[in-house]
Order: sequence, then C-alpha cells, then structure tokens
Amino acid sequence: MRASVMRNKRLVVDTIPDPKPGPGEVLVKTLACGICGSDLHTLKHAERLVESSRRAGAPFVMDLSRDIVMGHEFCVEVLEHGPGTQKVLKPGARACSIPALISGQGIQSVGYSNECPGGYGELMRLTEMLLLPVPNGLSTERAALTEPLAVGFHAVEKANLKPEDAPLVIGCGPVGLAVIAALKLKGAEPIVAADFSPRRRELAKKIGADIVVDPKTVSPYQSWNDAATYKDPSKAPAPAPWSPGPARRPAVIFECVGVPGVIDSIMSGAPRDARVVIVGVCMERDAIEPLTGISKELNVQFVLGYTPGEFAATLQNLAEGRTNGDVLITGKVGVEGVAKAFDDLASPETHAKILVEPWHN
Amino acid sequence: MRASVMRNKRLVVDTIPDPKPGPGEVLVKTLACGICGSDLHTLKHAERLVESSRRAGAPFVMDLSRDIVMGHEFCVEVLEHGPGTQKVLKPGARACSIPALISGQGIQSVGYSNECPGGYGELMRLTEMLLLPVPNGLSTERAALTEPLAVGFHAVEKANLKPEDAPLVIGCGPVGLAVIAALKLKGAEPIVAADFSPRRRELAKKIGADIVVDPKTVSPYQSWNDAATYKDPSKAPAPAPWSPGPARRPAVIFECVGVPGVIDSIMSGAPRDARVVIVGVCMERDAIEPLTGISKELNVQFVLGYTPGEFAATLQNLAEGRTNGDVLITGKVGVEGVAKAFDDLASPETHAKILVEPWHN
Repeated sequence: MRASVMRNKRLVVDTIPDPKPGPGEVLVKTLACGICGSDLHTLKHAERLVESSRRAGAPFVMDLSRDIVMGHEFCVEVLEHGPGTQKVLKPGARACSIPALISGQGIQSVGYSNECPGGYGELMRLTEMLLLPVPNGLSTERAALTEPLAVGFHAVEKANLKPEDAPLVIGCGPVGLAVIAALKLKGAEPIVAADFSPRRRELAKKIGADIVVDPKTVSPYQSWNDAATYKDPSKAPAPAPWSPGPARRPAVIFECVGVPGVIDSIMSGAPRDARVVIVGVCMERDAIEPLTGISKELNVQFVLGYTPGEFAATLQNLAEGRTNGDVLITGKVGVEGVAKAFDDLASPETHAKILVEPWHN
Repeated sequence: MRASVMRNKRLVVDTIPDPKPGPGEVLVKTLACGICGSDLHTLKHAERLVESSRRAGAPFVMDLSRDIVMGHEFCVEVLEHGPGTQKVLKPGARACSIPALISGQGIQSVGYSNECPGGYGELMRLTEMLLLPVPNGLSTERAALTEPLAVGFHAVEKANLKPEDAPLVIGCGPVGLAVIAALKLKGAEPIVAADFSPRRRELAKKIGADIVVDPKTVSPYQSWNDAATYKDPSKAPAPAPWSPGPARRPAVIFECVGVPGVIDSIMSGAPRDARVVIVGVCMERDAIEPLTGISKELNVQFVLGYTPGEFAATLQNLAEGRTNGDVLITGKVGVEGVAKAFDDLASPETHAKILVEPWHN
C-alpha cells in the first residue's frame, strides 16, 4: 500500500507491505484521517515519547529505527474479515474506531506502533469489536472528527462541570475547539476563549465560544473575570473580605496549547480555587511555581484520550447534528501531501484540521 | 517585650516595643508557640515570599528592611482588651486563634507582618472575635498544636476521601504527621507513610501510620501497591486489561516535603488516576513532566491553611482526645533558643516540633 511513513524522523511517501488482519481483526480502507497535533509533536519529540512510554512501563513501545505510519483520527470502509470474526459489519460498510488494537499480547495504539499502521496509509488492521458503524447521513469527513472531538468531550467530562461553573479555554487549535464544542453541548456559558490567531478566534466563535480574546491586547483572565459574574446575584456566595467587587463563579480553565510555560502562566492568571484541566499535550519538561498553586489552592487535572463510551457518544452527537465540527476542517490532502500539511499546520492562520484521504492525490 | 526578631535575614533576640491592641483587639501573652517549617522557609526565602505575595496582589506585604516577629502556632493568655471589644474572655483566660488580624484595612497574617508580631515574642495583639477559649483539661502545649494539626485536617478535607481510597503520605515532618493524624480521624486505612528518617518514621507510627517505609530501601509506591488491594475482592472493579494483577484502590498521595523535585517524583511514582495533594510548601521554582501527569490522568490539588471551622474542629478534637499530637512535641525553648531551634529543626533525626515559651529561659 501507499503510505506517508515516519522514517528517520521524517515523513516520506513509500509503498510498504499491506497489513494482514489477524484473529478478531478486520482489514479496512482509510477513507479519511485527520492530522493531529500529537502527530506533529511526535515527529518532533519521538525520542521523548518513547522514553516516557518506556518509563511508564507501556507494554508496546515504538521502535524508531523501523517504519511507523501515524494517523489515529479516521473513518474507514470495511474490506475483509480476518479469522475468528463475527462479520457484523459487511464489506463496504463505513466505520469509526478508537485507535486501539487489542490482541493476546495487550493493547497497541493504532498510528503509534510499528505493527499497527495508522490512517496516513491506504489500509489498516482494526479490532472488529471496537468498530462503530457510521450512521447513514453522516458524512465521512464529519465521522473522521469523532476522535478529536471525543478528546474535548472527555476533558469536559473530567472537569465535572456544575451549572455555576464559568469556563475559560486557553488556545483555540483543534483541541481547544473540541473543548469549546463539548462545553456548548453541556450548556456551559459564557464560554470565554483565547488565542493569538484571528483565524482561530473566528473558528472558536463559530463552534460555540461566546467571548473570544486576543491575549496580546486583553488578558483572558480579565475577560473571564468580567464575564463570570452571577446572573442572579442572590445566588452568589458572599465575596471574600479580601476580594474586590462581587463574587465570581467557579473558574474552570482548559489548557489547550501544550507547550512549556503555559501551565505556569495559567496558574499565575487563574483566580483562587480555579480548576485547571490540562488537555494540551506538552512533551517537554516544564517549570511551575508551586507557591502560586498553593496560595490559590488550585486544582490541576491532567487528562488524556476518552473512554469507549465517550467516543461512541461523540459519534452519535455528530450523527444527530448536536455537534457540528465542520468548521474544524480546513483542508484535505492525499498521502503525498502529508509532509507539507504537517508544515502548514505549524501556522495557525491557515489551518485547523487537515484530513488525509490516502486514496486521492 | 523580649522577642526573637527576623532582622536582615537573621534571627536576633531584642527588646522591642510592646504591641498595642487596637479597636476590636486583645493584648495577649504568648504561652507557647510552635516553630513551623514555613518559618524556616521564610527565613531562607523571604524575598521570594514577598515577591509572590506582591504578584498575587496581597493587600499587606512584609517589609524585610523592618523587624518581623514570626510565630503563628500559638496558645495565649488574655491580658487586656482594646477599645470596642466584647470582653467575653476575661483576663487570665487561655485562647487559640487562627493567626489573622482583621482590621478596617483588611486581613493581616500574624507572624508574617511588620505590624502584627507573632508568637516568638512575649506579647501579641489578636482579633477578639477570632479567639477560641481553650477547653479546661487541655494543656497549653497541646492547644498550641491546633494550628499545625488544622493544616493536616484541611488537606484531608480537600482530598474528599471516600471509604475505598488508600492514602500514601510522602514525608513525615510536622506536616506529614498532621496529615496522618487527620487521616486516622477519618478512619482511612491502611495509612502508608514514607520518610528517610527512622525517627520520623517512628513518630509516624505513633500518630497513626499503619505501614512506614524508608524510600532508600523500599519504593513507597510499591509498598502502597502491596497494601492497597481491596479487602473484599467482590467490591473491586475489573482490572484494566493492561494492568498486571488485581485492581488497586484509588490512590490519594499527600506531598508533605515541600522541596523542588518532590512533585515530579510523586507524579512519576503515582499509579494511574491518583489524586496528589500538595501540602508541603515549596517556595522555589520547580520542574515537572506534564506528559507523566497526562498519561496517568493525575489530579493535583494544591492546598493551604484551613477554614476557621476546620481550626475550631481541630481544637475540639484535641480537647476531646480524638487527636493526640503529643508525639509531635520534641523540644521547648525560650526566645533565646529560637535561632538554635531553627538550626536543630533542619535535622530530622532530632526534632519534629519545638515549642517556644517566650516567658521561660
């Protein structure tokens, strides 16, 4: 098959052996696969990721001296069933799946494994029991957004939002946009979101942010503070004696940037008792001021991925039109275009999510 | 009055003007005042503390060019009432108070303020409405433990312990011991506690730890893992497919050391989904690996101080014998002995809590 391959820390297009479906597995054709910021990080920091997986005792760790086909945000078409399968979805059926392959040896990550090529190639092997049929009427492009939107859905679930909570989203790349979409689903408001890029602020508005802020000109924390008053002042707790002005609603701040320094700057800007949800994946060592967290009694919740239930709910939300992620999609490429798309995604002014359609040129 | 004074980053004994009780204030005699690790930190990192208070917009910030009398863990005797007081506690009555002075200008910290000398001096001014009478039968020494034990009580309250939670305490200095005492009050078990010092491990056992570990020879996380099985396996959730052995109870890890590197090492040792409560006060910049927190979905709760209600409950727990903090007290000094006591407290083998009795030599 043709694939965009990570080889010697670069992306190259090559013809590599077709994957073979093992027991309980299905061979599928990749219809569309989104490019994820984690893949950009991985191309840049592959060694750190491998080292961290090894330290955490992960059963499978990528061998960077061998080929890896990334891509884990996919919508596929069933081609062929391996041995020991139920064959519930017939060849030709479209499906989504959490990017995991379950075998007797354990669970491997599709797209971050030497054995399980991801969606930047024409074919994949997937675990049959994880396949979810794409409901009729839901386009392939939208179905491919299930995975990135599930990340936002999960982050908001982990935040345990209460009706009085007032959210602030720092960073409006695909992760931030997915968080905003999930906040909208929960009925949170006002949703305040910050990004240096006008394009991303525009996308944030489209996907559900009520107030968008350019941190270069306005402090996101000040904007949040202005917006997070109680609509019904009788429901507000008494303000603390040392705090100026009326009480503010509880702050839930979503870190959706994932580069060093952002956690520290959020801790510094956050109001007292804020909950900070770390959704951005920073792969580098980072510095914080514990005293800042201590003096404000901050809570920091790190999150990753989603549960199978959250993934399925996200696909359903897309199918029923409760979530419209279309604004996320800003481009499409074939396998030949993946390397350039990685470069393009570094600029926030042009793109949010680029879909790879490996069978198109 | 005679006092141990922080002057030019050193502790010196001097005679300084007696404090004068203002409106709503009471002049008190310091009967006993514990030396807190935060005071050791403050002597060492006073500039950082001032800078951090200033950044956080604190209404009162210490002027380090002027005298400061530290000491905020006190039991006092009422001497004289200032103007506009209720005089509920008569002269001669013993009392405890949260170390705060409330005035028209705001709240100041007793012991961290140029205007409100703390318990390392013979006399203090305190806010009358914050005074809690020391119940008959409770010794002055024990009453002086209210403040440090309230810190542990608050940390455990913020941890929202559930019956299935299994705690691990990292560091058995006064803060760790207070956390262990509070865990014991909550009925948590087994309480696993780690410290390099044999003396502190012995104190941890005495105050309520079930299992103590020397991290030099045994990993605290391994000890916790061995101890944190479900007693009734039918109540255990199904273990994750990638996890070896039976499911473990939810981990709640208390950071009670407060030096750089400890948060990172706890994040690295913690099991998946652990809640980490930061009780130790690290006043220096610190480095973490966000990826470690992310891949385990850790929750980090920073805590500080206690509520007035938690403070009062702690005094009551001491009075009714539900908490016995006696093991904490390892020495007593007069004002002349404070500077040496600060030095002695740097060695964990000799001391946990030293009480200052400013009227004794």
